Amino acid sequence: MIELYEFPLSGNCHKVRLMLSLLSLDYRSVPVSGAEREHQQARFLALNPFGQVPVLVDSGLVVRDSQAILVYLARRYGGPTWWPDDARELAAVASWLFTAANEIARGPNAARLHRKFGKPLDYETALAVAAEVMGIIEVQLQERSWLALDRVSIADIACYPYLALAAEGGIDLAPYPAMRNWFGRIQNLPGYVAMPGL
Amino acid sequence: MIELYEFPLSGNCHKVRLMLSLLSLDYRSVPVSGAEREHQQARFLALNPFGQVPVLVDSGLVVRDSQAILVYLARRYGGPTWWPDDARELAAVASWLFTAANEIARGPNAARLHRKFGKPLDYETALAVAAEVMGIIEVQLQERSWLALDRVSIADIACYPYLALAAEGGIDLAPYPAMRNWFGRIQNLPGYVAMPGL
Repeated sequence: MIELYEFPLSGNCHKVRLMLSLLSLDYRSVPVSGAEREHQQARFLALNPFGQVPVLVDSGLVVRDSQAILVYLARRYGGPTWWPDDARELAAVASWLFTAANEIARGPNAARLHRKFGKPLDYETALAVAAEVMGIIEVQLQERSWLALDRVSIADIACYPYLALAAEGGIDLAPYPAMRNWFGRIQNLPGYVAMPGL
Repeated sequence: MIELYEFPLSGNCHKVRLMLSLLSLDYRSVPVSGAEREHQQARFLALNPFGQVPVLVDSGLVVRDSQAILVYLARRYGGPTWWPDDARELAAVASWLFTAANEIARGPNAARLHRKFGKPLDYETALAVAAEVMGIIEVQLQERSWLALDRVSIADIACYPYLALAAEGGIDLAPYPAMRNWFGRIQNLPGYVAMPGL
């Protein structure tokens, strides 16, 4: 029995929903109310002391952090297609997972938090970080179909939501045609699910 | 032949140096001059378009991002002790790797960048993020010897440098006795190496 504690409009939650769907895994959604700050209340903090969604609970095992949940699902349920055993492949996937956790979080994700949800933060810095990481990814995707491997991997799933939602952060996607083609490849995967804004 | 492109005073570089030493791996250090902004020059950007150190090159394979390098080294050279095959153990290790990439980077690492190197950033926010993550880690380490597993893992190596260097960011370590005991356990590992400030 898998449970996913989540916000509906979070891209970090969406990457987990997407992965669960790509793996054809059944789960129960447990909506957490951001408006009521449920993620900061004792019951939720007992699951994740960082007070962040998503949290995945799989038969009693609690996994926090969206990227770590992708690692867990790929290893536990994905087979070698989704979880490479080869050290070189693993290194490539890992590098992009940390890009999702770092530059994509501080760039397009932060820009969207500011523009769509009013979060006070340095929007100009977020735009600058976004422009750098999106430029690098655009160059990567001009030469390859997927970010890390010759097939889709959790690197793509981790990076996709906040790049595809960048317009909600006031970022024009027109300069990124290779990235938009990659969005299309992800959206054509069997089991793809969307969210508002995608 | 392993080469490590690095800044001497970077905690992210140090975690890789420490891991290489714990695994008894020989490597050649390639110092990158931050003062001359070598990390932003074409020769370095060809290795890592993000312009960040560390970068590890292992017989032609280029791995960027300090946490991803730890994943690579553990998988390639560490055996099952350092790279768990079990999905539950992997989930626990991964969660803390992303904490190193996120809260520890935005907290104690950012505070040190500001206080020691004069980087313009929101120091109060860095202190607040540091206080939260260090408080959570202190509670964890009151009940267990290592962050993720019942033995040392790359989760400990990833989180250690910027926590142990927190005083250089103006953060008092006195309220964190369990964390300081954990520093001692890491410093007693065979092959431990220090850096200035540790």
